[in-house]
Amino acid sequence: MKDMQTIVNLAKARGFVYQWSEIYWGLANAWDYGPLGSLLKENIKNLWIREFVQKRTDMTLLDAAILMNPSVWIASGHVGGFSDPLVDDKKTKERFRADKLLENLIDEKESELGSRDAVLTRFQWLYAINNLIPESWTFEQQGAVLIGEKVKNPNNNEEADWTEVKKFNLMFRTFQGVTEDSSATIYMRPETAQGIFVNFPNIVRSSRKKVPFWVAQVGKAFRNEITPGNFIFRTREFEQMEIEFFCEPESVAPGKHLEWHAAWKDACKKFLLETLSITESNLRFRDHEKDELSFYSAATTDIEYKFPFGWGELWGIADRTDHDLKAHMGESKQDLSYFDPYTNQKYLPYVIEPSVGLTRLFLATLLDAYDEIETEEGSRIVLRFHPRVAPIKVAVFPIVKKLAEQGRAIFDLLASDFQVEYDETGAVGKRYYRADEMGIPFSIVVDDEHYNAGSVTVRHRDSGEQEVVRIDELVEWVRARVR
Amino acid sequence: MKDMQTIVNLAKARGFVYQWSEIYWGLANAWDYGPLGSLLKENIKNLWIREFVQKRTDMTLLDAAILMNPSVWIASGHVGGFSDPLVDDKKTKERFRADKLLENLIDEKESELGSRDAVLTRFQWLYAINNLIPESWTFEQQGAVLIGEKVKNPNNNEEADWTEVKKFNLMFRTFQGVTEDSSATIYMRPETAQGIFVNFPNIVRSSRKKVPFWVAQVGKAFRNEITPGNFIFRTREFEQMEIEFFCEPESVAPGKHLEWHAAWKDACKKFLLETLSITESNLRFRDHEKDELSFYSAATTDIEYKFPFGWGELWGIADRTDHDLKAHMGESKQDLSYFDPYTNQKYLPYVIEPSVGLTRLFLATLLDAYDEIETEEGSRIVLRFHPRVAPIKVAVFPIVKKLAEQGRAIFDLLASDFQVEYDETGAVGKRYYRADEMGIPFSIVVDDEHYNAGSVTVRHRDSGEQEVVRIDELVEWVRARVR
Repeated sequence: MKDMQTIVNLAKARGFVYQWSEIYWGLANAWDYGPLGSLLKENIKNLWIREFVQKRTDMTLLDAAILMNPSVWIASGHVGGFSDPLVDDKKTKERFRADKLLENLIDEKESELGSRDAVLTRFQWLYAINNLIPESWTFEQQGAVLIGEKVKNPNNNEEADWTEVKKFNLMFRTFQGVTEDSSATIYMRPETAQGIFVNFPNIVRSSRKKVPFWVAQVGKAFRNEITPGNFIFRTREFEQMEIEFFCEPESVAPGKHLEWHAAWKDACKKFLLETLSITESNLRFRDHEKDELSFYSAATTDIEYKFPFGWGELWGIADRTDHDLKAHMGESKQDLSYFDPYTNQKYLPYVIEPSVGLTRLFLATLLDAYDEIETEEGSRIVLRFHPRVAPIKVAVFPIVKKLAEQGRAIFDLLASDFQVEYDETGAVGKRYYRADEMGIPFSIVVDDEHYNAGSVTVRHRDSGEQEVVRIDELVEWVRARVR
Repeated sequence: MKDMQTIVNLAKARGFVYQWSEIYWGLANAWDYGPLGSLLKENIKNLWIREFVQKRTDMTLLDAAILMNPSVWIASGHVGGFSDPLVDDKKTKERFRADKLLENLIDEKESELGSRDAVLTRFQWLYAINNLIPESWTFEQQGAVLIGEKVKNPNNNEEADWTEVKKFNLMFRTFQGVTEDSSATIYMRPETAQGIFVNFPNIVRSSRKKVPFWVAQVGKAFRNEITPGNFIFRTREFEQMEIEFFCEPESVAPGKHLEWHAAWKDACKKFLLETLSITESNLRFRDHEKDELSFYSAATTDIEYKFPFGWGELWGIADRTDHDLKAHMGESKQDLSYFDPYTNQKYLPYVIEPSVGLTRLFLATLLDAYDEIETEEGSRIVLRFHPRVAPIKVAVFPIVKKLAEQGRAIFDLLASDFQVEYDETGAVGKRYYRADEMGIPFSIVVDDEHYNAGSVTVRHRDSGEQEVVRIDELVEWVRARVR
């Protein structure tokens, strides 16, 4: 069954994902990527770079540092505002996210009162609240509802004695240099995007790109979440793939940025369906309502994936207008505006930001590939990755150990270009099944007869069909299928 | 001239490396990798993975987290011992690394007394010190020499009033979860290697690899250096490519690990010379003397590169015996030993650790590729990267704008497989020169006559020679040259 525990177990057993520092007591919600996992993650990343950077003439790649100047996070609003609302139960001294408690409350009330409208009417009447999005409420409103509705402590299901709701900044702080006073405080970046904004003038100067153009970046980000969970879905350390697409502002080309936003939705969808081969029915697109949008955003769309624990955000595509460049201009007192050589105008570009979690995309890809086949001996697992996504492209199996030399020759032939698994022991059937569980799309059997005739037999993971391929055409045969 | 300032300027102008968060006041010794730099870094990394992981059957890749369980750093000795000796000048309140002050002192004394032996004799007599490696002295010895030899403050060249030498831990500390008490203190990893050791049992279990096998990892590490410097040579945030090669211990195969150590020296040398095409005369191999070796190490070799500021370490190849696994076994109380199915013996493997700084390799590659050509209009820069290393493989230039469509067709033909630059404006000669400065090995000119005959003209960066290549053979033509 495709539930999370099955996936967590498979991930560990096959070397996709291990629990963090496991030989010590481990730590909840932190994970290392094993041999197959690191290859899969690398492949997804490289496909993203190929589609969004390499195949375009209007792109550039960037790799900014994790530790950034603290002023960056003042300008971006993270020092002031990037925080979770926390509340303690004085009875048990346990700490919770107030907004999550309230989301659960709303769900309960919905069943009780029959509709979300009924819940909203009640909350409007009692607490002067105008929507059902707790994270948008003030801390006072959150506290008032928690107490007014007698929300229980979810851990013991008993009446709680709630403190005030307080904010807790999600950035990890550290200290640069040799002293620990506040002047040396720096932050581990909570997102990669700001690295692009602060390098905007550098990139314009050195790359000669003209608006519209975009900058792409892959890298780690860190958030001191107090409620991480669902395996690698929400973790304190994660990887993002973010693009900032700089385009004409509303004042220069009215409505144009909204067209770009729509085009980006299509491009991301195409990547998920055509490049990663994600099942379409597991995806949904959710345009943010007006009251859900950040004050600066002209449009935002979330692409969500149907995880075993429910729909979860995969990709956010936000039209952020000129909010970020303007904020950095204000904080740094530097002129970040762009001179357009086509129109002779000087302006701050708008940006469209398609931002996807690499580690979430990894989880969605793994879940989507997961399949079980019923056999007479019980069920067995097959990971049906598209060949271009699969961590390992080809397995090479000399049919008997005596043919190890020939097997190694086939391995060497392929290994300059592809990730290849080599296994010379055990029954071939067992080796096939193991390859299926690793998601290897093609298994090559080397036997005397075919080898001497200049060929090998290739078994297809998904159909089980076998095909004889000439050795001198093998590299091209594989290449054509893993593109 | 190939001095550091020229390289720093070129790196900024061409988008290899920008100063960190530059629009704010920047920060000494922190850098972002721009469009060309991030591609170059990615290429070096991918070549390392191809040579050391993909082409081998006895390898695996790993990607462990940056934030690790604090016990890992207790076991590894980093919490207790990973520190710099610092000393303050009470007169100016400036802080220095005592060992660096002492290294400079030794150099001065060497000129004064005529030889290092004479310096050693003096120091033995006066301070009971038995070698000229200050970092191996006790803090008391370091302090005694600083004061006894009246070492001056190097910033003002005046007599200093030195404090005691104190240690300062180089790990960046942060706090996980919502409180800042010490139980939640975690560290940003100061090296990637420990992630491999703690996952050793996971990897053995899930990958079915047999000793000898190895685990490779690329990732960021962080050290709170107080004297970073020399551009990207020593920075607080850097990237490492580390391998732990697990082999038979001395008790099982006497001397075998030393043979492996020697084989690894050759493999690393081959990578530098044949894969990256680094100039051999810019490299030297330095085996550590007995008194320089860590107490647990059976052999250590540094590969050094001749940087403009002197020889600097690029790659360290250490035979670490079973020191690390033993330390983690002691701290975690878990059995990390390996059962060898060939010999039916249970043992802790020895490890050979070839560890190279990706960012240092980047700097060496950039310096090594740097060349200047004297022309009538002055000198111009050519970056002579090997085609397999070059950030961008091919430039496509329609000779006139009218041929943009044909130019784009050639771009699209190549861009699925290679990183391609496209430029349709300006004199072709200028575009060639710009491509040379970006290190692009092949520039393709698209003109009407050749294009209609199904071909294009390729100019070679290094020879300036031109060659006509058929369009239907172009992908293969490039592929053969960038492998």
